[in-house]
This record gives sequence, structure tokens and C-alpha cells, in this order.
Amino acid sequence: MRIGVIHGPNLNLLGTREVEVYGTDSLAEIDRRLAERARELDVEVTIVQSNHEGALVDFIQAETSAVDGWLVNAAGYTHTSVTLRDALAATELPVVEVHLSNILTRESFRRESLLAPISLGVVAGFGARSYLLGFDALTDHLRDSV
Amino acid sequence: MRIGVIHGPNLNLLGTREVEVYGTDSLAEIDRRLAERARELDVEVTIVQSNHEGALVDFIQAETSAVDGWLVNAAGYTHTSVTLRDALAATELPVVEVHLSNILTRESFRRESLLAPISLGVVAGFGARSYLLGFDALTDHLRDSV
Amino acid sequence: MRIGVIHGPNLNLLGTREVEVYGTDSLAEIDRRLAERARELDVEVTIVQSNHEGALVDFIQAETSAVDGWLVNAAGYTHTSVTLRDALAATELPVVEVHLSNILTRESFRRESLLAPISLGVVAGFGARSYLLGFDALTDHLRDSV
Amino acid sequence: MRIGVIHGPNLNLLGTREVEVYGTDSLAEIDRRLAERARELDVEVTIVQSNHEGALVDFIQAETSAVDGWLVNAAGYTHTSVTLRDALAATELPVVEVHLSNILTRESFRRESLLAPISLGVVAGFGARSYLLGFDALTDHLRDSV
Amino acid sequence: MRIGVIHGPNLNLLGTREVEVYGTDSLAEIDRRLAERARELDVEVTIVQSNHEGALVDFIQAETSAVDGWLVNAAGYTHTSVTLRDALAATELPVVEVHLSNILTRESFRRESLLAPISLGVVAGFGARSYLLGFDALTDHLRDSV
Amino acid sequence: MRIGVIHGPNLNLLGTREVEVYGTDSLAEIDRRLAERARELDVEVTIVQSNHEGALVDFIQAETSAVDGWLVNAAGYTHTSVTLRDALAATELPVVEVHLSNILTRESFRRESLLAPISLGVVAGFGARSYLLGFDALTDHLRDSV
Amino acid sequence: MRIGVIHGPNLNLLGTREVEVYGTDSLAEIDRRLAERARELDVEVTIVQSNHEGALVDFIQAETSAVDGWLVNAAGYTHTSVTLRDALAATELPVVEVHLSNILTRESFRRESLLAPISLGVVAGFGARSYLLGFDALTDHLRDSV
Amino acid sequence: MRIGVIHGPNLNLLGTREVEVYGTDSLAEIDRRLAERARELDVEVTIVQSNHEGALVDFIQAETSAVDGWLVNAAGYTHTSVTLRDALAATELPVVEVHLSNILTRESFRRESLLAPISLGVVAGFGARSYLLGFDALTDHLRDSV
Amino acid sequence: MRIGVIHGPNLNLLGTREVEVYGTDSLAEIDRRLAERARELDVEVTIVQSNHEGALVDFIQAETSAVDGWLVNAAGYTHTSVTLRDALAATELPVVEVHLSNILTRESFRRESLLAPISLGVVAGFGARSYLLGFDALTDHLRDSV
Amino acid sequence: MRIGVIHGPNLNLLGTREVEVYGTDSLAEIDRRLAERARELDVEVTIVQSNHEGALVDFIQAETSAVDGWLVNAAGYTHTSVTLRDALAATELPVVEVHLSNILTRESFRRESLLAPISLGVVAGFGARSYLLGFDALTDHLRDSV
Amino acid sequence: MRIGVIHGPNLNLLGTREVEVYGTDSLAEIDRRLAERARELDVEVTIVQSNHEGALVDFIQAETSAVDGWLVNAAGYTHTSVTLRDALAATELPVVEVHLSNILTRESFRRESLLAPISLGVVAGFGARSYLLGFDALTDHLRDSV
Amino acid sequence: MRIGVIHGPNLNLLGTREVEVYGTDSLAEIDRRLAERARELDVEVTIVQSNHEGALVDFIQAETSAVDGWLVNAAGYTHTSVTLRDALAATELPVVEVHLSNILTRESFRRESLLAPISLGVVAGFGARSYLLGFDALTDHLRDSV
Repeated sequence: MRIGVIHGPNLNLLGTREVEVYGTDSLAEIDRRLAERARELDVEVTIVQSNHEGALVDFIQAETSAVDGWLVNAAGYTHTSVTLRDALAATELPVVEVHLSNILTRESFRRESLLAPISLGVVAGFGARSYLLGFDALTDHLRDSV
Repeated sequence: MRIGVIHGPNLNLLGTREVEVYGTDSLAEIDRRLAERARELDVEVTIVQSNHEGALVDFIQAETSAVDGWLVNAAGYTHTSVTLRDALAATELPVVEVHLSNILTRESFRRESLLAPISLGVVAGFGARSYLLGFDALTDHLRDSV
Repeated sequence: MRIGVIHGPNLNLLGTREVEVYGTDSLAEIDRRLAERARELDVEVTIVQSNHEGALVDFIQAETSAVDGWLVNAAGYTHTSVTLRDALAATELPVVEVHLSNILTRESFRRESLLAPISLGVVAGFGARSYLLGFDALTDHLRDSV
Repeated sequence: MRIGVIHGPNLNLLGTREVEVYGTDSLAEIDRRLAERARELDVEVTIVQSNHEGALVDFIQAETSAVDGWLVNAAGYTHTSVTLRDALAATELPVVEVHLSNILTRESFRRESLLAPISLGVVAGFGARSYLLGFDALTDHLRDSV
Repeated sequence: MRIGVIHGPNLNLLGTREVEVYGTDSLAEIDRRLAERARELDVEVTIVQSNHEGALVDFIQAETSAVDGWLVNAAGYTHTSVTLRDALAATELPVVEVHLSNILTRESFRRESLLAPISLGVVAGFGARSYLLGFDALTDHLRDSV
Repeated sequence: MRIGVIHGPNLNLLGTREVEVYGTDSLAEIDRRLAERARELDVEVTIVQSNHEGALVDFIQAETSAVDGWLVNAAGYTHTSVTLRDALAATELPVVEVHLSNILTRESFRRESLLAPISLGVVAGFGARSYLLGFDALTDHLRDSV
Repeated sequence: MRIGVIHGPNLNLLGTREVEVYGTDSLAEIDRRLAERARELDVEVTIVQSNHEGALVDFIQAETSAVDGWLVNAAGYTHTSVTLRDALAATELPVVEVHLSNILTRESFRRESLLAPISLGVVAGFGARSYLLGFDALTDHLRDSV
Repeated sequence: MRIGVIHGPNLNLLGTREVEVYGTDSLAEIDRRLAERARELDVEVTIVQSNHEGALVDFIQAETSAVDGWLVNAAGYTHTSVTLRDALAATELPVVEVHLSNILTRESFRRESLLAPISLGVVAGFGARSYLLGFDALTDHLRDSV
Repeated sequence: MRIGVIHGPNLNLLGTREVEVYGTDSLAEIDRRLAERARELDVEVTIVQSNHEGALVDFIQAETSAVDGWLVNAAGYTHTSVTLRDALAATELPVVEVHLSNILTRESFRRESLLAPISLGVVAGFGARSYLLGFDALTDHLRDSV
Repeated sequence: MRIGVIHGPNLNLLGTREVEVYGTDSLAEIDRRLAERARELDVEVTIVQSNHEGALVDFIQAETSAVDGWLVNAAGYTHTSVTLRDALAATELPVVEVHLSNILTRESFRRESLLAPISLGVVAGFGARSYLLGFDALTDHLRDSV
Repeated sequence: MRIGVIHGPNLNLLGTREVEVYGTDSLAEIDRRLAERARELDVEVTIVQSNHEGALVDFIQAETSAVDGWLVNAAGYTHTSVTLRDALAATELPVVEVHLSNILTRESFRRESLLAPISLGVVAGFGARSYLLGFDALTDHLRDSV
Repeated sequence: MRIGVIHGPNLNLLGTREVEVYGTDSLAEIDRRLAERARELDVEVTIVQSNHEGALVDFIQAETSAVDGWLVNAAGYTHTSVTLRDALAATELPVVEVHLSNILTRESFRRESLLAPISLGVVAGFGARSYLLGFDALTDHLRDSV
């Protein structure tokens, strides 16, 4: 089993800026913990981070046949990218949406997620832990579906 | 450490009706898994289920001094109960909101959560697993805050 | 054949207050006429009235296996109770919605019915007669479905 | 006592098309059952069906002094015809609105009825039976008003 | 100079029904006063009344080359007929919109006029007098434009 | 009989600026024509123009007992002044609203009139002529009401 | 003279939680001051507090014939309970609405009061003092109405 | 194969009025080109134009069994006629919607098409050519579906 | 202690017009009762009434250093004057908003108060008594804050 | 004559995924048919596909002087890209918008096209055929404009 | 060259109140700096400040023929005064809108500017500096237009 | 001191297309004038232009530690890019937003700026001059903040 992990724009800054909102974990640290968790669960991961909407879409298209599901924190593209949504939907693979902060409690434009209607579920508000919880949920789901 | 678990209205029917939406796990089964998980994490749980908004509020008031955080699936009251929200907010304890289905993909009146603005985070869409993931998130959060 | 009749909040006052809006028939009188009509049609009825949303939900859960359909005047809960709707929907039995007054011609918050999307049909505006018409409609529907 | 029955546009197709939505009863069959019911209740009926908004208005104006109330299924004109509403309102006779399907559960443009505010009441969702129930309601109302 | 006068649906009932809203003048009386006023101003008039939207459009198309402007009380079609608006706009002649009652103070659906954006001006609220005032305004406008 | 004529803000500029929108008649010219028309109809007039909302309200309060009705072009205050509306309503005298241009065809904020619900009627779109038409309508109305 | 005082959900916590919003007065203290004020004004009071919407409705129905007016702080039910509103309206007694905080300055869902349209008036924003001011207002009103 | 072509209201004026918006082709010319194209593709056509909504509905009902699909320019009825939509939907035949101008770039009330949800597709903005393109699209679709 | 009392536009008419809405107390009578109440509470008052928004703002600026709080019935300016709000907010003194009628039950444009977000609280619906209740509330608040 | 053809994001997947929505034609097949049609009409084509909004804009800027018009299926960017719209508008060349599916019948966020107001026309709903029809329409338009 | 500078209501308080929002510069200081800048650029200035909407309009009318453009900070009237907008528009001179704070980031009612559509441009958010930047922009514009 | 200047998409076309909207200055000319102004003020500048949202974000991340503030004309991304906003906000440096045209007077989708809430201020409507005015404002602000 292999999971594609997608980090959207600005997430490469994690742990260095606005730590009061997003916490002190760096993206490298999150990736390290995801890799560790993947080993425990005997799952492989492919990870991408990009500030470019198109690059994320290219990645999704390239990896579709290699992965079994997507763990996605689309950051700012969550609310604006029909294109990213279409790319994920086209793969017909399960998507789990994660967010570091509780998007339902922030500015109104962050309360609408274009990804939600094509996602299995969402985990939001638990900082870096959101990724691990989402990873567990996706792995369990894939195991059940077999 | 002790966690108050709140099951809102109609959740006592779990596993017996509309299984294509909510899955085949009964509430008893969910409670059993929560208890098991609680033992593993060395945490205590107090659980309530009621179809009565007022009974849930009474429970929250009665248990406030005994618990360290709330794990809440308010079901239908999620979208309509200012009273439940006020009761939880008054406790000034962390709240984790869970839902069996992905509420963001259902009828429009289910997409608004009155609890979200007072919650730490949300886990939705993973069936009975949402509870366990939310339980882990809340426990971790409480451990970190000590 | 057995029909569950649900009278929502404040309907126990029928005939004693605001008679210019709701008419002079008491709830007992309506129940008497329903019972009479039931006998004519060789149908049994189980009737409840409560001002408590939770009590109505408890009743629905308790009676589900004993009845074949619901005749519901949810009064004030028509417009606010996702919980009542979920309880009725979970029974997967036919629901007929009745109202004494024509809700479409009253205050705007009364024009939205949360029950409508899960109901077979609606009868509104004919006072106590709405119940009898709705009863006939539900009975006919159940006979046809056999 | 005499009742004017108005069938709006496309209802002449009943029973031949979209039977999964509107049922298998033809309009002739509905008219036959209305006539039968009228005989039982010792009431006369005048019936019209037209696809022309203006023709329905002409009919209403022509029959006003001959009838005591209106039983109306305005079909598509329910949602768009201020003119039909004005014509009915001008007669100052009681109007009962009927619909074959439960309009509150269909497309959003079908959920608004221009006739509702000038109607005594509404019966919707019971197929051909809606007419008979509406007929009973109107007849009863007229008897009570004498 | 010749003016086309258009009376929309239900206006043939004027003076016989809802006199508390529309006054006691019959349409014949209004036409008589318009004819009298036309003679005083040395203008000809062509008058139509119909309950049929299509008939009004046919009339406009037929009379376009014979008239110099339109005096229009579209009644219920004011708020719903894009078709009538298109027919009048296609003539490229000045339109004066008149209403017996002050449409801005009635039901919300009567406050929007599809004719307003293609009209020179509007006179509303003065009963039968609205026609005469609108007639004077249109005649003056046409005299000025020569 | 005596009519209070109210010219709102900026109308003192009439005929000198934006003549393509408001025409070439000066306010003095309009007043002269109103005076002439008043003499013909044996009516007296009291006229005010002010750019100050408060001054218009003071005028209305001072003249209430001396006049029989109001002819009002509130210009920019039409859309924003609850205060002017309250002042006019308090007089309980008939109000006729006039506008030089057809306000229903201009910017959206000009399409809402706070005065409309307390006015007998409206004349809009005929330039200076709107005043004379409104004057006739108000005078006729007052004559009828005697 | 006798006044029914209704304290809505969570108000039993007053003085113990969120004191920065609601002040340090306990509900017992408020009730003591109301009782004292009642004695001064020679009025009797009947007081209820409940977290159950249905219990509040039951109380209103039971006490209707014993009281002359209602002093109501419906707390969270202010914004969601059509049922409570219907119960109060059915009594046809004067209602004075009070709130500890100024609800017009809080979250948007707290700015809509379902009770307002059936209330004589409102006092909001003065903490425990709101009750006393509302009590004075209601007593005065009842004295004037005799 | 036979195609029903429906020209809505005012289209009989094509080529004679507002040529800057709709072009100089007359309806006869469009019909001639459609007939020519039909011959080339070995298809038959039945054509109607009417300003009467009801007449268009009558035509659709009468021709349903004789045609294989509809090419519709409903003009003003596109935005207002639920009745026309219901008539077309009832035929369960493919519909292609055409417009001379690009309706998405005109007044807001022209941007909503009641026909769109029941149409295969739309061609808009290419003047008379829209008809020919729509004709090709419909014919191709019918050929593919065989 | 000194309180600035602000009476907005048209309030100088109190007791002489629309007495069924605003009661029979004149403004002089209200001022007399306020002065009396002030003497009892050993407080001074400065009172203004103006129909001019600017004059009210000038007054506020002139009196700011002489008063300790504001009692404001802004009448029509409540709903439209950002300027009055800014003037009051700039004083950084407590504001109590009063209204004779219950503004929440009147026309929709009267339900929005621009002053509410900068006010301590509101008293509305008790006629002249609203002033006295608001005066008590403001005085108490100032005493507590010392 | 030369036409710039723009395929937006995810269209490179055509024919391989979600074939029930978008059909089985691959993008290569569509390009082949466009090339063939271009040869027949003696027109040249330049084609681009990219998932990158910026890359599409770069292409438009680079090709502007080489082409005579644009045939655009912007896919997901249709609804979100002001930038793409500005790039096309800046070229001042005719734009024809095409879509494989009928966007007016899909999710609400797909019903708004930012390109429509700068496009000559639209062809939507005919699968790969939409491109050919749009190509014909654009070529015809360019021929006519010469 | 001469520029009319308009300071709206409450700006006479600058530097003495709410300095955390509006800064410590007094209006006299701003005027001094504007005068200094005017001398440098060889431009004359006429300055007004008033809390009276009508007084600002009177000033604009009186100075129109003496100035070449307007520098306007309408403060609270920015959002409510159609009258001020009409007065400025009537002058047909360029208007530059300035604000001390960034109005787009404040309360929602401050985000709408009635002046924007008639202004050349806007400078907001730079405190007293906004005036100087706006002054430069207006002067440059006037120089270019010569 | 060093300022990062960001030119959004399509701005590389300045001076060559749509000159009636955006003026005749090329981007190179604007950059030259900015450089000149920077020399005068003894400030350094780093400039980027890109049509790629991701490239602008990469630039911001790369230059954050090298600059003291941002001068941003995000063009089409102003209204759609949460990602660009997040990138700028993460730098915690002052942002000045500039626009060539007055965005408040254009299409409605251009009136909403996602950058406004994180910007110090805005300068819009003065063509190339907007950049210089914004540059002065930002430099002044940075000097004051030292």
C-alpha cells in the first residue's frame, strides 16, 4: 500500500513563521513522523510540496497509478482551486483532507473547501497531529476496502 | 485524566438503521472500543447518550469538574443548539467535534456547525473511527497542555 | 395496520387559546375524530403529544417497529428540529406532514419545513380537518404499497 | 354548490409520460373520480385544462359567478404566474391548491408558490389522491362557511 | 400622432372586483376618458386588453408601424414577462409605464418591474388617473421630440 | 387648498449641470410653472429647497398645519433618509413622490425609495414635467377626498 | 399582581463561569434581588430555571392562568426556539425580554431574537440589572393597563 | 430522422429590428438554411414560431411522437417558463438550446436558463449560425445514440 | 455626575402626532421626568433635541468633556448615521441606547442599529419609560465604574 | 488564418478517466480531428495544454501576434482565473468558449464562467464535438469580419 | 491651479481622540502640511471641515467654479451620503478619495464607498500621509490633463 | 532599506495593450521610475514580474529575509489568490497594495481584494503613478517604524 501526501503552498515555511497559528513543527519534522508512522503500518509514502497549483496537479497525474489514496493539505488552494479538485477526483482514489488549524473558525473565505465534496473525511485543528490522524484514517479505510 | 464523551440524539440507533450512511457499528460497540482505547492510553471516560438537548446540557454541567475535555458528536443538535454550545463553552475545557459522516458533503443545513467555533478541531467522515481519532487527538492535546 | 400520530409542542392548548388562528377544536376532539376515522378504516392509532423534542424522538424510536407510518404535526419543531427529522428518517417509514394553518402564508421562519424533504406529502391550512385528510392520504398510501 | 377545477399546463399528458414521477392515472381518470366524488357529496363541478395561461384566466373570469370555490393544480404556472394569482384573488372565492408531487422536495424554483398566499390550504404529494383530498377539504370548508 | 394603449391581464374586471384596491372605475370608463383626453390633445389611440401574454405581443408587433408610442399597464405581466419587454423594446418607440396602485408598496414580487429599464418613465398609485397622467406625459414627450 | 413642495439636495443646480441627465430647466423655471399651474387650479403653494436634511425636516414640521399635502422630490435623501420619511409620515397628509429621471433604471442604490411606502403614488422619468404631473395627481386626490 | 420569571438554559451557572462576560452575580442573588424588588412593588413572582426547552414550555402552560405577565431571559433558546415563542404567544400576556449582555454586539446568530416580535420591549446589556429594569418596566406596564 | 425546431416569441421580427443585436438574417432565411442543412444531412424538420407560451406547449405535445429531438430558441421564455421546460422534459427526447446572442453577457435575468438543466447542450452567441451549429450537434448526437 | 441626553429628529413632535405608536407624552414631559429622576439620583443632565445630524454631532463634541455618559434616542439616525456613531465612539464614554417602540418588531430597516455595537446596552419598547429605565441603567453603571 | 487552441488543466487525461462524464475521446484524438477540420477549412492551428495557469498565460502572450482568434476550454480555470481572462482580453482577439459537458447543469461553482463576458459565444455539452462546433463558429466569424 | 479640500464629520477631533486608530496629527497640522505642499507645487487650496452633510454640499456648490479638483475625506458620510456624491458628481471635476485608515479592513459598513464610482482614485491607510499622497496624485493628474 | 516590488500577471504587457484602461507606460518605464525614486530616497529595490502564482510565492519566500516591506500590484491574483495572501502574511512585513485603475469602480469581482486585510494601505486609480505614491507611503512608514 502506498499513499500520496500533498502539501500545498507556503507549508514549506512551517515552524519558521506564524508559529502561534501553525505551531513549531517544521515540514521536515512532519514528513519524518509520517514516514515513521508509515513504517509502523507497513505502508509506503510519496510526498510533494509545491507553491504551484499546476505542479501539484502534474504530481497527482504522474503518481495516480502508483498510489492507493491521497492525504491532502491543500492550504490556500483548498478554497480556490477547482483544478486541484478535478485532478484528485479524476484519480477516483480516496482522499483525506487535513488542516493544521480549524478552518471552520477562521476567516469566512477559509470556511469553504472545494475539496470536501470529493473527500472521504476531514481532520482539522490539531496541528501536525492532523496529518498523523488523517494518515491513520486513510490507511484504515484502505485496509477495510480490500 | 478523564474525558467526557457526548453522543447526541438518534445515535442510540447506530448499527440498526440507515447502515448505508452510518455503518454497522452499534453505539455499544463504539463505546466498547473507546473504553478499550482509554485503557491503552490510561485515561478514564464518562459517556452519555440522550435525545434530549436539556439532558445533554445537564450532563455537561454535572460533569464539568470531573473531566478534562469533551469528545462530542452532537448529531442533529450540531446545527441548531446554541444552548449546547453555550454549555460546552462555559466549561472552558477543550472540545473535539466528531461526526460519522463528512458533514461538509451533505444537505446544506448540515454544513453549518454551531460547535465548530468553540472546538479545538474536528474529525468527520470516518464512521466509528472518527471517535477513536478524535479521542487520540484530544488525549494528545491534553498531555501536551500539562 | 397501525399509524403513529405525533402532536408537537403547544398543541395540547388547541381550542383554548388563539382560536382565531387555530380554531375551537380541542386536541382531545381531534384525537376522538382520528380514532373514529381509524375505526371506519380498520386501522389502529398510537398517539403522543409532547412539548419536549427529546420525548418525541424517544416515542418515535420506541414505536418504530409497531407502526406502519407517521402522521406528524410537529408545530414549532417543524422549522428547527434536525433531530426530529433524523429520528423520522431513521424509521424509513412513510411520513405525512400536517398543519392546522397554511404555513406558506405566515411568518417567513414558518415557511421552511425541515420535515418536508423526508415526507410523502403535506396537508396544510384546513384546521383539524388537515389531520383527517392526512390520515386518509397515509392510509391509502399504505394500502397501495402492500 | 359548484366547484371550479383548474388543471394547468401539461397535465393533459398525465399517465402517459414520466409515470415514475406523476403516476399512471390519466387526467380523464382523475376527472372521472372527481365527478364520482362530487356526486357522492352532491356537488357540481366545472373542469378546465389548458396549456395557455391566458385561457385559464379567461375561464376563471367567465366562471366566477357560477362557482363557489376553486380547486387548482396550476402545474408550471404555480411558480411563475402573477396573472393567474391575480385572477383567482379577484374572485374572492376560497382556493385550494393541489399538487401531485411534494413540491417542497423538488427543484428550488418549484418550492415557491405564488398561489399559496391566496389559498386556504394546500395538499401535495399524494398523486391523483391530492385532488380528491383537496376536493373534500374545499367542500367541507364551503359547508362550514354557510 | 397615435398612441397604443395596452391593458394587461385581469384589467377587464376593473370596477367590479377588489374596488378597495383598484377603485370603482371600469375599464370602459378609463377608455372613455382616454379617448376624450386624446380628442382634446388631437391624438389618436389604439387600445387592447388581453389576458394572454402572446396576444399582447402579437398586438404590439401588428401595431408598431401605426403608432408613435406605448402607454402600458402590464398588470401581472409587469413582473414576469421578458417576452413582453422584448416585444416593446424591439419597437424602439417610447414606453410609459402606468399602474393603478403604488407597486412599490405592495408584495415584494410586485416591486420589480421588467418594463422599467425600457420605459421613459412611470406613473403609479393614482388609480384610473395614472392612465391620464401617463398619457399626458407621453404626448408631451412625443411633441418635444419632433 | 395649499400644497407644500419640497426640493431636496442639489436640485438648486438644475439646468446648469449634467443637463444630459436632468434637462435644461432651472429650478426657478420649475417653480414658475408650478405657480402658474397652481393659479389655474386655484391652489396655493409653499416651496422649499435645501441641501440640509434637518432643514427639510424643520420645514415639514413648521408647515404641517398650513398645508393639505406634499409634493416631494427628495433627490439623494430619497434613498437614505429615514428621518425625512418619519417627518412626512408624522404629518399624516398625502405625499406624492416625483423624480426627474426614472430611478428604477439607474444605479441599484437609487432603486430603493424610503418614501415610497408612505406615498400615495410616484411620477418618475419625465424631467420637469414630473412635477406638474405629480401636482395634478395630488390636487385631484385632495379634491376627491373632500 | 404576579409575574412569571423564566431563566433559560445555562443561567444556573451564573457567577461561577465566564464571569468576564456575564458578571459575578449568581442566579440565586438575582432571584433574591427580584424578590426584594417584588416586595417593594407589592407584586408576587414565580420563578423557573431549566435547561430543557420542553420544561420551560410546560411551566408556561401550567402558570398561564396564575400570572399577569412574563419576564424572560431565554438565553440560547432566544435564537432557536419557535416552540418557546409559540408557548408565550399563546398566553396572550405581556412579555418583557431581558439579556445580561448586549446581544446586538455579539455573534451574528445571537442578533436575531425569535421572541422580539411577541415582546412588549427588551432590556439588554446591563448584567443582572437588566432583570430589575425589565421587572420595573413590566410592572409599570401592567399597572397602566388596569 | 426528424427534428422539431422551436422559435420563441419575437423571433418572427428577426432581421427587421434591433439588427445591431440580432443581425440582419430574417427568420425565413434561418429556416431556409436549416432546411438546406437538413437536406444535406438527410433529416426532416418541423418548424414552429409563436409568441404564445401555450401554443408552443401545444405544438410540443402534438409533435412529440413524430420527432426525434428538439432544437429550441425559447427567446424570452427561456428565463420564465417552467411550463415550456416541463413540456420538453415530458417528451424525454434530447433538447439542444440555442441563442443568437451570448446570454451570459447580457442583463442578469437573461443569464438564468430554465431549459439548461434539461438540455443536452447549448450554443449561444453566433447569431443565425447558432442554429446551424446546434442542428449539427443534435443530429450527430441522435446518430450516435442509434 | 452629569449625563448628556440626546433626542434625535422628529422627537420634538412627541405627544402631538402618531400617538397610537409613540404615546401621549410630550418631549417636555419626558424631559421634566428625566430632570426629576436626575434630582432624586443627584445627577445633572444636559439635553439636546435636533433634526440636524450635524447639530447632534456638534453637541456631542462640545459636551464631551462636561459629561460622564450618553443617553441616546437617535430616532431615524439610529439606522443611517455612521457619523453620529463615530462622534459618540470618539468620546469613549458609555452610551445607553433607548427607543420608545420595540424597533425589533417594526420595518426591516429599523431593525439594524448602527449605535448598538458601541453601546453598553439598549432599552426599547416601553414608551417614555424607556428613557427613565435607560437613565437608571446608565447612572448605576457609572456608579459601579467609579 | 490561424487559431490558438487552449486546453486547460486535467484535459490531458481525457479518454482515460471519468469517461462516463467526459467521453472516451483522448485529447490527441480531439487534436487530430481539429487538425483535420483545420485542413478542410484551410486554417492553421497552434495548440497548448497545461495544468499551469501561468503557463497558459505565457502561451497567450507569446502567440497573440501569430493568431487571429482563440478556441478555449479552460476547464477548472473557467471559474477561478481572473488572470486567464485578463490575458485573453488583452489580446483583443475573438474568443470562443467550449466545454465538453453542459456546465449549466453541474455543481453551482461550475455555472459561473469568468470567460463568458469576454467571449463571442459558447458551445457546451457535446463532448469532443463541442470543440469542432466552436472551431467552425470561430472560423466563420473571422471570415465574416474580414 | 486650486484644489478644494473637504474634511468630513468628526475629523476636527483628529489627534485628540482614538489616537491608536487615527494617529496623533491634528487637523490643523494636516492642513499646515497640505498648505506647505501646495506652496511647493505652486497650487492654491480651499479647505472646509463640517459635521453637517448639507454644509459640505453648500461648500461644494459655492466653490465649484473656483477650483480644479477635489481632495475628499468624507469620513462617516463616505458610506451613507448619496447627496454628497451627487454634489461632487455635478461639478464634473476630478475627485480623489482619501482615508486615514484602510477602510477595506474595518467594519463591513465601512467597506462600501458611495464616492468610489465617481472618483479618479483612492488612497487609504497611511494616516495623515494619505492626504499628501492624494494631493500629489490629484495635482499630477490635473497637470497631465492640461 | 530594501523594498520588494511584485508585479502580478499580465503586467508585462503594460503600454502595449488596452492603453485606454492602463495607460501607455511600459512596465520597464515604471521600473525605471521606481528605481530613480528609490535612489532619491536612498532605498534599494528587488523587482519581480510573473504570470505564475507559484513563482510569485517562491519569490516572496526567497526574498523575505532580504527586504523590509512589499509593494504589490497582484493584478488578477488580487481577487483569487489566498495563497499569495498567505505568503505575504507569513513574512510579517508591511504590505502596500497598488492598482493602476480604481478597482472599486470596475466589475464586481474586482472590488474584493484578498490582500486588503493584510495590507497597510492601498493606492488605486492613478496609473503608473500609483506605484510611486505607494512607494513613498511604504518608505515613509518604514522610516517612522524604525
